[in-house]
Amino acid sequence: MKTKEVTPHTLEIVQGGSITSPKGYKAGGLHCGIRKKKLDFGWFVSEVPASAAGVYTTNSFQAAPLKVTQESVAKENKLQAVVCNSGIANACTGEQGLQDAYDMRKLFAEVLGVEEHLAAVASTGLIGELLPMEKIHGAMAEINDEKHGGSEKFESAILTTDTKEKGIAIQLKIDGKTVTIGGAAKGSGMINPNMATMLSFITTDANIPSEHLSQALKDITNQSFNMITVDGDTSTNDMVLVLANGLAENEALSPEHKEWDQFYQGLRYVCEHLAKEIARDGEGATKLVEVTVEGATTDQSAQKIAKSIISSNLVKTAIHGADANWGRIITAIGYSGEPINPDKVSIYLGEIKVVEEGVPHPFNEEQAKDYLLQENVAIHAQLGDGNGKGIAWGCDLSYEYVRINASYRT
Amino acid sequence: MKTKEVTPHTLEIVQGGSITSPKGYKAGGLHCGIRKKKLDFGWFVSEVPASAAGVYTTNSFQAAPLKVTQESVAKENKLQAVVCNSGIANACTGEQGLQDAYDMRKLFAEVLGVEEHLAAVASTGLIGELLPMEKIHGAMAEINDEKHGGSEKFESAILTTDTKEKGIAIQLKIDGKTVTIGGAAKGSGMINPNMATMLSFITTDANIPSEHLSQALKDITNQSFNMITVDGDTSTNDMVLVLANGLAENEALSPEHKEWDQFYQGLRYVCEHLAKEIARDGEGATKLVEVTVEGATTDQSAQKIAKSIISSNLVKTAIHGADANWGRIITAIGYSGEPINPDKVSIYLGEIKVVEEGVPHPFNEEQAKDYLLQENVAIHAQLGDGNGKGIAWGCDLSYEYVRINASYRT
Repeated sequence: MKTKEVTPHTLEIVQGGSITSPKGYKAGGLHCGIRKKKLDFGWFVSEVPASAAGVYTTNSFQAAPLKVTQESVAKENKLQAVVCNSGIANACTGEQGLQDAYDMRKLFAEVLGVEEHLAAVASTGLIGELLPMEKIHGAMAEINDEKHGGSEKFESAILTTDTKEKGIAIQLKIDGKTVTIGGAAKGSGMINPNMATMLSFITTDANIPSEHLSQALKDITNQSFNMITVDGDTSTNDMVLVLANGLAENEALSPEHKEWDQFYQGLRYVCEHLAKEIARDGEGATKLVEVTVEGATTDQSAQKIAKSIISSNLVKTAIHGADANWGRIITAIGYSGEPINPDKVSIYLGEIKVVEEGVPHPFNEEQAKDYLLQENVAIHAQLGDGNGKGIAWGCDLSYEYVRINASYRT
Repeated sequence: MKTKEVTPHTLEIVQGGSITSPKGYKAGGLHCGIRKKKLDFGWFVSEVPASAAGVYTTNSFQAAPLKVTQESVAKENKLQAVVCNSGIANACTGEQGLQDAYDMRKLFAEVLGVEEHLAAVASTGLIGELLPMEKIHGAMAEINDEKHGGSEKFESAILTTDTKEKGIAIQLKIDGKTVTIGGAAKGSGMINPNMATMLSFITTDANIPSEHLSQALKDITNQSFNMITVDGDTSTNDMVLVLANGLAENEALSPEHKEWDQFYQGLRYVCEHLAKEIARDGEGATKLVEVTVEGATTDQSAQKIAKSIISSNLVKTAIHGADANWGRIITAIGYSGEPINPDKVSIYLGEIKVVEEGVPHPFNEEQAKDYLLQENVAIHAQLGDGNGKGIAWGCDLSYEYVRINASYRT
């Protein structure tokens, strides 16, 4: 069952779609015992080697699995299979941790019968603990058992403090062929620019060389995954991986292809959807907040200001309390470090104008409160200084965030 | 009554000391009706015009009183009197707000009989509301009434969500004369680098030209007020003002004076004390957290890393929960943007080593929990890369922070 979505380009959302919606992908997940009860070990695999591209955390303490995965991708820019555990991040684990990540890749490739450099590994969870390798071994032995199959199991196995699975698939036409793009993600805490404790896996059956896939992913990541924040902390383990196995049999995509933009917007849609789902499901979050900044001198400047607003604890707590405290929004604009003209700034909460050209604009407090009580809140700042535009997503800051994080480890 | 403090230089802390401890200063405060019950209008004045220096918020939306005060100081680098209201910040108030700040300065100067450019004005509180000028007028008429006198009334009148007054005075000898330095401050929310909703007023009877006073204040602010954070938000109204009226009759101080360092360390002590008190009294705070970073390539780099750690919501919630979650500390070091060598980083909670050269160091969880349950918590990171050192101060992130800020305005 499909529904039509009205966008500048025609793309269809696959109801119940996932990373296995594109041709030639299988996925699964199981409980191997790293976490108490929840699934903690997942994988997906393509029938054939796929063009691959990745974006990785900018944190100096990059976790062991990221090093191993980058090594895999570097070999010939292809991947065929990805394995991921939750519960332990295998970060800050020194030589032993690196060896464990290599072993995890080796075992996984062996059990699937793929070449080792076509396998990627990912981990998420606590920092500073070694993987229980005997449990990983046990899990590997069960990968080929049909009963563990299913994309929903994969989606579940990669979660940590997330409250729900995040999956999507869309379809579009290229060269008259149906191309499908699917995705799965986990987020929740340590979510901030330039990756975060965020893992995102995207699959497609499009035929696209890795160089163009890689460029598209980088561009789109800067407008999606890098524009969300939950708490401003960027983790050691974040990555986005895209696999494109070519089974849709379209002509090879490149920016010169007449339908390139169609594919690009489709990939963007999937990334933006997953990014927003991550923000909405931030630790303790009760709302998705979208901040749009227009009229900045450049897009980059607008993005930075949007991030400054959505990262402010004071803005986030005000929204949690449904308090139209625009002073905190204007303050966050003011300390963004970007050039602004205070006398030209106007601010809207949804459609309600609260600041006009730097001074308060009268508004109905009750109406504003009702608006802020909704699950989706939009903040809009018009700077009046140019054509730069940027959008960022985040969530409110709640008691629950403090509760979760004051006791996460112990 | 005085007690001896052992520091590299001999300085004595004046018990119960305040901004009126130095010779020739008077202060007072009263309730003029901006706030419901609490004092909301305070002032202090020097017998004679004093050398003056200020440091102001870097927020682009600088509030009206800051513009007026900077204009006063710019005239001849002298001030004689300062007035401050709490409850309304007079920020984002356009032309009318600026006119109100000018009127406030004019009225204040008139009632004290000082020249207008020797008067400074400050405001703190809600953004976007106009000052109730009739109440300000009423307050001015009472300034000379003795019953409103007293530094403790001033300290109280400048507070917003602070839970207690913050005052100090120290004494030291210069040229055989007793020089006293006093200070008062308010903080609580929107506390972050480069000022914050932070007001700090320092008085001294030292004889020091404004150019040297100004340089010392800038240097010291970068190591004290700019090294604290409560929530990462930098407000529109922050400033630090220092007045030096020369009544101690020491020879004019300059970096060439043989006892310059004595004065510098005294001023630093006062600023650091006030900065730490502001951090300790952050909104919802239950602890003062001191982060020391050593072994960085430069002092600036160490300061930036220390700020990255103390600004992390995840570190702050872990400390609130007395959870020795060093993974969050190492993560914050890693995303600071500063060059670090992950394999050389060691981390201590107080005296307890938890990370040694990038990998976990075994420690007793109960002992660490007991340590983190204390009111003063020290985090120490040794980067092993150089001689750079920096210290930052902050507080934990509690339920109470969310409660205060989800309902501050309404």
